[in-house]
Amino acid sequence: MSQKQADRDVQNATRALNADATRPFPASRRIYLQGNRPDVRVPMREIALSPTVGSAGTEDNPPFPVYDTSGPYGDPEVEIDLVRGLPAQRAGWIEERGDTEALTGPSSEYGRARAGASETAHLRFQHVRTPRRARDGQCVTQMHYARKGIITPEMEYVAIRENQALDRLEAQGLLTARHPGQAFGANLPERYTPEFVRDEIAAGRAILPNNINHPESEPMIIGRNFRVKINANFGNSAVTSSIAEEVEKLIWSTRWGADTVMDLSTGDHIHETREWIVRNAPVPVGTVPLYQALEKVNGVPEDLTWEVFRDTLIEQAEQGVDYFTIHAGVRLPFIPMTTERTTGIVSRGGSIMAAWCLAHHRESFLYEHFEDICEIMKAYDVAFSLGDGLRPGSIADANDEAQFAELKTLGELTKIAWEHDVQVMIEGPGHVPMQLIKENMDKELEACFDAPFYTLGPLATDIAPGYDHITSAIGAAQIAWYGTAMLCYVTPKEHLGLPDRDDVREGIVTYRLAAHAADLAKGHPAAQARDNALSKARFEFRWEDQFNLGLDPERAREYHDATLPKEGHKRA
Amino acid sequence: MSQKQADRDVQNATRALNADATRPFPASRRIYLQGNRPDVRVPMREIALSPTVGSAGTEDNPPFPVYDTSGPYGDPEVEIDLVRGLPAQRAGWIEERGDTEALTGPSSEYGRARAGASETAHLRFQHVRTPRRARDGQCVTQMHYARKGIITPEMEYVAIRENQALDRLEAQGLLTARHPGQAFGANLPERYTPEFVRDEIAAGRAILPNNINHPESEPMIIGRNFRVKINANFGNSAVTSSIAEEVEKLIWSTRWGADTVMDLSTGDHIHETREWIVRNAPVPVGTVPLYQALEKVNGVPEDLTWEVFRDTLIEQAEQGVDYFTIHAGVRLPFIPMTTERTTGIVSRGGSIMAAWCLAHHRESFLYEHFEDICEIMKAYDVAFSLGDGLRPGSIADANDEAQFAELKTLGELTKIAWEHDVQVMIEGPGHVPMQLIKENMDKELEACFDAPFYTLGPLATDIAPGYDHITSAIGAAQIAWYGTAMLCYVTPKEHLGLPDRDDVREGIVTYRLAAHAADLAKGHPAAQARDNALSKARFEFRWEDQFNLGLDPERAREYHDATLPKEGHKRA
Repeated sequence: MSQKQADRDVQNATRALNADATRPFPASRRIYLQGNRPDVRVPMREIALSPTVGSAGTEDNPPFPVYDTSGPYGDPEVEIDLVRGLPAQRAGWIEERGDTEALTGPSSEYGRARAGASETAHLRFQHVRTPRRARDGQCVTQMHYARKGIITPEMEYVAIRENQALDRLEAQGLLTARHPGQAFGANLPERYTPEFVRDEIAAGRAILPNNINHPESEPMIIGRNFRVKINANFGNSAVTSSIAEEVEKLIWSTRWGADTVMDLSTGDHIHETREWIVRNAPVPVGTVPLYQALEKVNGVPEDLTWEVFRDTLIEQAEQGVDYFTIHAGVRLPFIPMTTERTTGIVSRGGSIMAAWCLAHHRESFLYEHFEDICEIMKAYDVAFSLGDGLRPGSIADANDEAQFAELKTLGELTKIAWEHDVQVMIEGPGHVPMQLIKENMDKELEACFDAPFYTLGPLATDIAPGYDHITSAIGAAQIAWYGTAMLCYVTPKEHLGLPDRDDVREGIVTYRLAAHAADLAKGHPAAQARDNALSKARFEFRWEDQFNLGLDPERAREYHDATLPKEGHKRA
Repeated sequence: MSQKQADRDVQNATRALNADATRPFPASRRIYLQGNRPDVRVPMREIALSPTVGSAGTEDNPPFPVYDTSGPYGDPEVEIDLVRGLPAQRAGWIEERGDTEALTGPSSEYGRARAGASETAHLRFQHVRTPRRARDGQCVTQMHYARKGIITPEMEYVAIRENQALDRLEAQGLLTARHPGQAFGANLPERYTPEFVRDEIAAGRAILPNNINHPESEPMIIGRNFRVKINANFGNSAVTSSIAEEVEKLIWSTRWGADTVMDLSTGDHIHETREWIVRNAPVPVGTVPLYQALEKVNGVPEDLTWEVFRDTLIEQAEQGVDYFTIHAGVRLPFIPMTTERTTGIVSRGGSIMAAWCLAHHRESFLYEHFEDICEIMKAYDVAFSLGDGLRPGSIADANDEAQFAELKTLGELTKIAWEHDVQVMIEGPGHVPMQLIKENMDKELEACFDAPFYTLGPLATDIAPGYDHITSAIGAAQIAWYGTAMLCYVTPKEHLGLPDRDDVREGIVTYRLAAHAADLAKGHPAAQARDNALSKARFEFRWEDQFNLGLDPERAREYHDATLPKEGHKRA
């Protein structure tokens, strides 16, 4: 395929995207909330509502603003060109801090090789910027600034975003009916301030993942004293999908409410795919660098080396990945603890590291080089997502010795990362019956000093393959209520196959409703307003408003029209 | 339409049914567990598994038995004829007790009128039995027998059924990995005995709904010290569905795991539809008699009278309805408590009774005639499902004064019913944010003296129309964990339209997994065995076994085949 042909393909994909993945939500418009600086403009989606018609006359219902993760794709004024990527809206903030420098090119070996490789030229993103890096001896993490008492534009942005236009909602009377929350020790303020955001980041209770090489992303925060976030995974494999499809899944994910995405691509073009994704991602992007490192040694775990891994970290950090899953807690002495399990080690990263440790019979190079990893992370502001490589793969294995031994190690590593001012979140399970979920949360807060918890589900039972978005949403809503800061979605295809676009939508909406249920239960100040607005619309038979205030207006309308198709019914 | 034509239609429906709604689950066969009496034969579905192939050789995996609600439809040996109805398997048990008599015909006015009405002759079920009733002065409820110390064949059947072949599972090592449960005061024995079943019924902590005029049903029990049950609603309305469709939904529901069904039909042929459903139902059938009473007074609530209602109760009791939702807790003084609500009164029964009370400005005739109602219930063994007519219709209205005032009244009525030895369960909400769910359960147990709780969801948020099976499964799993005995399912069409067959399947599987998650969390002895068997199959890449052990093998296989269609992959 020629470069011209490849560009045409992506251009065609762009056009298809504009018609579909970016179609506007009904009755919605993009608004921006202005910060103190002219370049702090926080997007929301505003939903227009129809008036209440009662016996006493007509009463207006003001438009309802909602948190919006769709970035420029949700703004019809912005022209989208996937070939060029999104505008670098944070570039000015990064530059003006004066603690970074533009490099002349990639500093990883692999990055340099791929920049010139002719066999992948046709797949290569063309408008790549030269990477930036911290100046010698500097730390450029948001945690570092926070600990120095600095409020960055990113922090101000996040404070505005988390308030979700609450003053407006309150003025409209949408908070009159509001139940007290039960927050299990979380501290949700009535209004978010930049100072609050700064203090949470400084304490390590929240992270603001935004690599200096991903200036396209919109600041967001992950911490239990903020709105619960959700992550969507995707990624191509040689078999099933092209780069264009993955970019489409990215945009589709942000449309439905993904706060971050993880690119779990495997196969030959992993480097090129990632560039396309990061350049077009309005949300933070996470990866598991170990997957790519393994590809570089032809899939043989025992051939992994610190040098290959290190080069991969730098390669990805310079592309702009915002957080790395690092399975540094899979230590040699823990591996025998998994032998009696029903489902052994199910984390891919965990299996790879266990195989390496056993083959060499030595301690994990991730554990031994953890401080070296921190040095890399702090030079780009990549956050740790400390992986739970020994997480249970079944109800039977939940909360066992191996899992909690690893968790304790993740706590030790958190402390080390914090000594370097590197941001950290902790990954959690997986498969846990309901009565054991809270123990996971409590142990994480204790072992990891309140670092944000980021869990996959957990599935509350294993007996419903095909419905694991639901089995896991039951666990996810609970663990988020107890304090988990971000939920990694699960799609209906979990354990069975790779999710397609419909699965991604189903998984994201399911997780958004679970996260919202948790916000509601914790007493997050903005959570109940939307429920109240929707319930009022429902009671007044304002059907269109009921659809539009929901998480998926298209499906609500479609289901309604399936049995009551007449316009008259909807306005009844 | 002639009778001949109608019969042909149903015969055609029967054939279609055999090909679809009763298609066997893969690798499954029907088995029966034998009780002490030859006619106590408890059905289970046994799933054949493939062997484990390991480096040390091959190890057999014995077939796995699961609880089965599908009745004769799940037994390929039984020939199904919807026109004749199911075999009356409990008829002998009822007769031999000698406390009932066969009537010469319906004793309700309406029942007599419909038996001879020419305009509905073509819709009429042809093989109707004459109804039975308690002999004068007799009480024929399971509670009555239990309190006299009698163990009925129904109770023995239930004890075997609840054990779920646990001895076999234990012998196979499937209970080695088992977490302690957290049961919030529930008392789950390691093995169920007929004596335990009797004592739970005698104490009012469980009900065994089985009208003497529904001898086709298989005994099952609803109580928090047993497996959590689920109910599926359906029912035709003039607009959308025929009798054949409703019978199909019934069978479809029991296929996927509904433990009881409620027939909420409205429209002209409500009496005839019910007859078709009860005669073909292997599970208990519930109704809301008020809906039909309202039809009889042309939809004008203020025209309702005790006499019309009473006649409806007798009509339905003699058809074989197993439990009645009765909204006797909607008392006149509670109605003003709802005026400040966001969503007023959303229960249909509640609205009807509130309209009646306000129109006449007097106390509800259901409340005032409650003892008269008990007299009817005990003559047929119809159980009360005391309706929550003032349940909240939104997150905003959860746990308010109106709701809890009604709950307290339901407790008073429970006491009265128990004085008559009439079985009782209590209906619950609805819409409740997670932090307020437990209060519902605790208050119900206290106010209603441990009578079984039967809840609709509750939805944990209102913002996801189109996904309310999931928003409600989150709440349902939790409230069942806390002690709810039966969950009324919610389909994806909730709040939007009437469920079709796909919605019914989606709703039932979702609720089955939520109920199972609760059993698991409570420590129900048989719950974890299935998770363990499925997890083992998953870990060993026994794909077919993983599908077949799940709640919906067809969907699991379909999803798997969508991306990995080759047979080789499934056995990998």
